[in-house]
Amino acid sequence: MISAPPADVQSALAAVAGKAFSHVFLVACGGSLSIMMAGEYFVDRHGGTLACDVYNADEFVCRDPRRLGPDTLVVLCSQTGTTKETVRAASHAKGRGATTIGMTLDLTSALAQVVDHAVVYQASYTTGKPIDAAYGNYGVLYMLLAGLIDAQEEAGLAADLLISLGSLQPAIERAHQTYANRFEAFAPRFAPQTAIYTLASGACYGAAYSYAICVLMEMQWYDSQAIHANEFFHGPFEVVDRDACFIVLLGLDETRRLSERTRDFLFKHGSAENILTLDGAELDLTGMVDRFKPYLVPLVFFDTLWRFAYQLADLRNQPMLEGRRYMKKLTDY
Amino acid sequence: MISAPPADVQSALAAVAGKAFSHVFLVACGGSLSIMMAGEYFVDRHGGTLACDVYNADEFVCRDPRRLGPDTLVVLCSQTGTTKETVRAASHAKGRGATTIGMTLDLTSALAQVVDHAVVYQASYTTGKPIDAAYGNYGVLYMLLAGLIDAQEEAGLAADLLISLGSLQPAIERAHQTYANRFEAFAPRFAPQTAIYTLASGACYGAAYSYAICVLMEMQWYDSQAIHANEFFHGPFEVVDRDACFIVLLGLDETRRLSERTRDFLFKHGSAENILTLDGAELDLTGMVDRFKPYLVPLVFFDTLWRFAYQLADLRNQPMLEGRRYMKKLTDY
Repeated sequence: MISAPPADVQSALAAVAGKAFSHVFLVACGGSLSIMMAGEYFVDRHGGTLACDVYNADEFVCRDPRRLGPDTLVVLCSQTGTTKETVRAASHAKGRGATTIGMTLDLTSALAQVVDHAVVYQASYTTGKPIDAAYGNYGVLYMLLAGLIDAQEEAGLAADLLISLGSLQPAIERAHQTYANRFEAFAPRFAPQTAIYTLASGACYGAAYSYAICVLMEMQWYDSQAIHANEFFHGPFEVVDRDACFIVLLGLDETRRLSERTRDFLFKHGSAENILTLDGAELDLTGMVDRFKPYLVPLVFFDTLWRFAYQLADLRNQPMLEGRRYMKKLTDY
Repeated sequence: MISAPPADVQSALAAVAGKAFSHVFLVACGGSLSIMMAGEYFVDRHGGTLACDVYNADEFVCRDPRRLGPDTLVVLCSQTGTTKETVRAASHAKGRGATTIGMTLDLTSALAQVVDHAVVYQASYTTGKPIDAAYGNYGVLYMLLAGLIDAQEEAGLAADLLISLGSLQPAIERAHQTYANRFEAFAPRFAPQTAIYTLASGACYGAAYSYAICVLMEMQWYDSQAIHANEFFHGPFEVVDRDACFIVLLGLDETRRLSERTRDFLFKHGSAENILTLDGAELDLTGMVDRFKPYLVPLVFFDTLWRFAYQLADLRNQPMLEGRRYMKKLTDY
């Protein structure tokens, strides 16, 4: 169990505790945007008075929602803190009188400088060092949102969250074991394909989105898309044939039956050997409070799926981070 | 110019005019969901007091946002009025005390029966008969939302909308001419490909989404995805090579520069012959009020792109509606 949020999270929450926000905007790009989708699910489930929107940072600046103003909070996230769209979104929000909180790895970054309250999180992705996922992007975002809702509505969320986050890293380690053989079996089948789709709903959709665009497309150049598990039946399912490859995330949240339906369709009309299913029900989440499991499952999935991506990379003979041709190689776009 | 909204739209608006909604939920599936994305853009731009969310209908029911209640309006859409997820969402919303408006082609359908206020729209897609697009799904949705915002905030939107809708069908007819040669040139290049991506932002994103999942995937079994024009740079752009195929929608709304940036990148790193660009600036939108052009451009694009899809279908020797293997053929999913 974690006894309290980190000091900077506490300080940000204390600073905004007196304000009755009508709206929270969750703003970022790419992988950092994907965690905001889970954040919106969390606010939708628990925020009785708080409206919540998720926007890509550049869309947010141009769209410039009329409701953005002094009674709104904008939470932004950029790993390096240098993503120019996100820094610009923070400035824009401040200019409109909103309160801003920025999540980043680097408290000296441009994002940290421009926001009202900067909050640091950890990522093994960049540092290469092992971290406690409790202090990763999802964990810190949930601490902020739970604290915010608790302050406005006295919902008692933060206490259950901290207990659950304390059991997160061990759950991730166990999940690596749970999936090791499965990944080993699927990697040779998925590696030579040109397209892999991810499917999810509810709190897991963001993890599916990030895996599709920031891992499969960005690092392995697959054709991909994160398909919402119910939207699947309104068009995308027509691509299903015996050769099509899918990763299905079955979460533990209220939308679980949507993903179950998708899984069942795929097993009926596709090939079992091309359907990689990750099911929250098969994870050992000992120590987590039941009502928080649905919010932490997507990050267990995502962390684990990184390993699967590295296996694909080996078989495709295409390195992960170093294999990109444009990102962090070009500067003129 | 259209002198007034249809009687059922007027009647729905009159019935809700006295209520000060805090939130409007736009709820549907697939193609009908795609128009809601443009609706949210419209509300974001003009609604100073109204929060707006877009949800897939089944996600909406399971997610069950805590804010859903007596001070919220839920607008739903289903072409046939029989989409079971959408009918269920209407019942769910009513059970939570929300006011419901249902858009459908069929006023005798289940959706029309269950909602508080049913509103009919027209589609050539199903009837095969030519229609005036002013009374299509986008047109009717905008009439509802403009009327709603006008009633709550006296914004004067409906008058400009009606003027603009009166010039919509002729603009579509002219667009068919504008794009005829371009489609003719691109169809043979796109037809043999396995993947085609659509790219858009702002008010055009929904059209790109619908084209990707309901046309390219559903009817022609392409691998596809609607990529948000800025999210493109945070992962997906790594798939760009000389062979990759893209359709770029350049709208006239405030996010236009996002799509321009994407187009410029594609022309630099892809092949010009694989980048089909549709630009709102090249359309003849005579008669429309400037501030409404951005909202009507996506439906001009979408209507026009149907013709491109039929050209692809001919070359691929795969019929459009009749070629589906699951939708409207299976009943047990």
